[in-house]
Amino acid sequence: MKKILVPALIFTFFTGIVQAQTDSAVVKSIFTNILTEGKVYDNLTYLCTKIGPRLSGSANAQKAVEWTKKVMEEQGFDRVFLQEVMVPHWLRGAKETAWFNAGSGKQSVVIAALGGSIATPKDGVEAEVVEVNSYDQLKVLGEAQIKGKFVFLNRPMNPANVDISESYGEVASMRNTGASEAAKYGAVGVIFRSITTLINEYPHTGAMGYTSENKIPAAAICTRDAELLSKQLKANPKLKFYYKMNCQTLPDVQSYNVVAEIKGSEFPDQYIVVGGHLDSWDLAQGAQDDGAGVMQSIEVLRTIKALGIKPKHTIRAVLFINEENGARGGLKYAELAKQNNEHHLVAIESDAGGFTPRGFDIDGPSAVLTKVLSWKALLDAYGLSQIKLSGHAGTDIGPLKPMATALIGFRPDPQRYFDFHHAANDVIGNVNERELKLGAASMTMLVYLMDKYGLKEVSQ
Amino acid sequence: MKKILVPALIFTFFTGIVQAQTDSAVVKSIFTNILTEGKVYDNLTYLCTKIGPRLSGSANAQKAVEWTKKVMEEQGFDRVFLQEVMVPHWLRGAKETAWFNAGSGKQSVVIAALGGSIATPKDGVEAEVVEVNSYDQLKVLGEAQIKGKFVFLNRPMNPANVDISESYGEVASMRNTGASEAAKYGAVGVIFRSITTLINEYPHTGAMGYTSENKIPAAAICTRDAELLSKQLKANPKLKFYYKMNCQTLPDVQSYNVVAEIKGSEFPDQYIVVGGHLDSWDLAQGAQDDGAGVMQSIEVLRTIKALGIKPKHTIRAVLFINEENGARGGLKYAELAKQNNEHHLVAIESDAGGFTPRGFDIDGPSAVLTKVLSWKALLDAYGLSQIKLSGHAGTDIGPLKPMATALIGFRPDPQRYFDFHHAANDVIGNVNERELKLGAASMTMLVYLMDKYGLKEVSQ
Repeated sequence: MKKILVPALIFTFFTGIVQAQTDSAVVKSIFTNILTEGKVYDNLTYLCTKIGPRLSGSANAQKAVEWTKKVMEEQGFDRVFLQEVMVPHWLRGAKETAWFNAGSGKQSVVIAALGGSIATPKDGVEAEVVEVNSYDQLKVLGEAQIKGKFVFLNRPMNPANVDISESYGEVASMRNTGASEAAKYGAVGVIFRSITTLINEYPHTGAMGYTSENKIPAAAICTRDAELLSKQLKANPKLKFYYKMNCQTLPDVQSYNVVAEIKGSEFPDQYIVVGGHLDSWDLAQGAQDDGAGVMQSIEVLRTIKALGIKPKHTIRAVLFINEENGARGGLKYAELAKQNNEHHLVAIESDAGGFTPRGFDIDGPSAVLTKVLSWKALLDAYGLSQIKLSGHAGTDIGPLKPMATALIGFRPDPQRYFDFHHAANDVIGNVNERELKLGAASMTMLVYLMDKYGLKEVSQ
Repeated sequence: MKKILVPALIFTFFTGIVQAQTDSAVVKSIFTNILTEGKVYDNLTYLCTKIGPRLSGSANAQKAVEWTKKVMEEQGFDRVFLQEVMVPHWLRGAKETAWFNAGSGKQSVVIAALGGSIATPKDGVEAEVVEVNSYDQLKVLGEAQIKGKFVFLNRPMNPANVDISESYGEVASMRNTGASEAAKYGAVGVIFRSITTLINEYPHTGAMGYTSENKIPAAAICTRDAELLSKQLKANPKLKFYYKMNCQTLPDVQSYNVVAEIKGSEFPDQYIVVGGHLDSWDLAQGAQDDGAGVMQSIEVLRTIKALGIKPKHTIRAVLFINEENGARGGLKYAELAKQNNEHHLVAIESDAGGFTPRGFDIDGPSAVLTKVLSWKALLDAYGLSQIKLSGHAGTDIGPLKPMATALIGFRPDPQRYFDFHHAANDVIGNVNERELKLGAASMTMLVYLMDKYGLKEVSQ
């Protein structure tokens, strides 16, 4: 037995080493290529500065569709195509005005309508203000103390969470549903504290919706002015607040997901997707949210092609439209995948900014986590140490779950994301070139390993 | 045997869990305290904006000594004291002027004298330029082609290293010794490409020295102008370059390390040091380099006191003077430690910026690495996954090695450090509050664990 076993073990041992060296060398070449010749930062600079804000339904969103399609065609990928998506068309209209008067004249404050809000009446709304930091407080105050007033939802983002994105979830739901909650008690409008730990002059917008026909307007106030208003309210509970907003919701508009493919050599009808969302809020260049993810996704395909890697599975970059205020692009992609019976080995979403890579969240069977952890030494060597199961990998890939073995969220360092998120300072100047490139390289690395080793362990 | 063994195992098992929960709870309280009530960012803001640049020997360096001593005294630590250190006193003098003329008139370029450089003659130096990117190239060109000219050391920082700080080492030695190398072949001055991967208008200064009496001036040129000069040299190899520098080296000046202590309850004569350097270059606020490390070190002691942690060993925050151009503070601290027979369990240095924490480099016996890795689950939970042995933990703690069981370098994310390092954009606005605080919390965590569990495994 010994004589038979030993050579077999040695063979396995050496194969293992050769394999590992090969992967290590390929991954090194991926990082080197992107860090020295990568296009992701230049592409993002163009998107931010030559196109700029690209809210769903806008002329700029259409320009972004056309330009990214052209960029991908110029790369010579095997196939570049559009998927038709009907998207909402909400407009901010003329810039908002807002002030409060605590008895000594009008004090201007900086607000921005939340996406989806109705306009105020033409002359604006003026009323007293009730400040709360939870729906429980709203309930306690009730109609008696709320009717005819603004509700000021002044809940700061909790700084104590080491992963600050956990603090986002705690307040974002209040942004989404605050207007309808306040309307139940007869409020005339909502003033929502911007979701950021910074105290500054940038209002952070974001999606809201109405759960009933009783619609009232809702605006984000910058944190500097939220602090000021709160302070003044303590001294003058009867102060008057005023805002005027000019939003409109027009009929849905035809838009597109932009998709590029490198065909798989062994399993061309099995897909590995990398994606981000092409739309942004109207206030921002959408550099970190999510021009970064879009350009990283294109960069993954560019790098695979540049290095002559021949993937077994078809690799797709998907630039989803309308993540911010409808998620229609993600829904449409999943609908078409189902219709066309396209099995997805994995879909990887980058929508947490172009910061230094930290790891991946896996939404799928634990066998996928086990598989990814089999590459731990390599992942660790590139700082990708935070690998875990999670119930959420990404908004756009979420609907694809029934057609995918696993969904994976790329997780860069979260600390600076909410400094810029949905605000006018989300610009290219706040993106670090190396961090952005390292993210693209990390995604490429995972695609390379997933494609090479597959997920045979997982029942598909 | 079973009946005897099982309860023992259960006991060990539960003790282990209780212990882990206690540490986990303490560490959580450290992070929460700093993230919600920490003073490190406010203190750094003061240092940067109210004091500012603080090169060794300057009036500002003295202000920084006095102010940080006061800050530590106000915290009520057990002991605050100064250590006298004689430091070099180099002055930049009036701002440098520089231009080149490729035949179509003078093109201004932005330079900054390297720290330690001699001045040019009063009227400056004008000469042709020889561009090289290595000492080997210098040797090949030799005196025949170099004598009477400027040597332009135009070696870009290598972007391919994932850990960009590795690329720093490759070029920093050329900054240190380039003038003496070029002088061997009769050069009249050195133009040194700034050490950063960014292309912009900020010259990055840094220390240089002379290895012989044949001294020529040396200046850093900003990368934007290094690129421009290189391009013009290709078209016009005979172009003339000019610079004028007004530096002076005055006699050494009395300065100080600033030290604070919380006394140990069990081993008061055994020390755990956390430190950074108080001096900065004259061009910058020294926010990331190294106001961050200084203020984090004070924050470690503040947090221990605020949480009522009673350390067994004496915990010291040491604000070293003169790291940038002499490292005299670190030498003096080690000299006094030796003189006073002070054993140091560990010294932890933070001098790589106030960015998101990634881990620790350990310069010491492998048993120390093993010990630190016994806390791996806890370290990983806070993103501190990069724990490794290294030959270099920090410049200021280096001389302490014979008196310490281990030296440890705090390692934040390195990607943005060289965007600001030794340049005028190293300002508080380029420090992220949460990242800075997380660094202070990470250092406090390690001090807490090291103090509690000691390093008995290591022969001391």
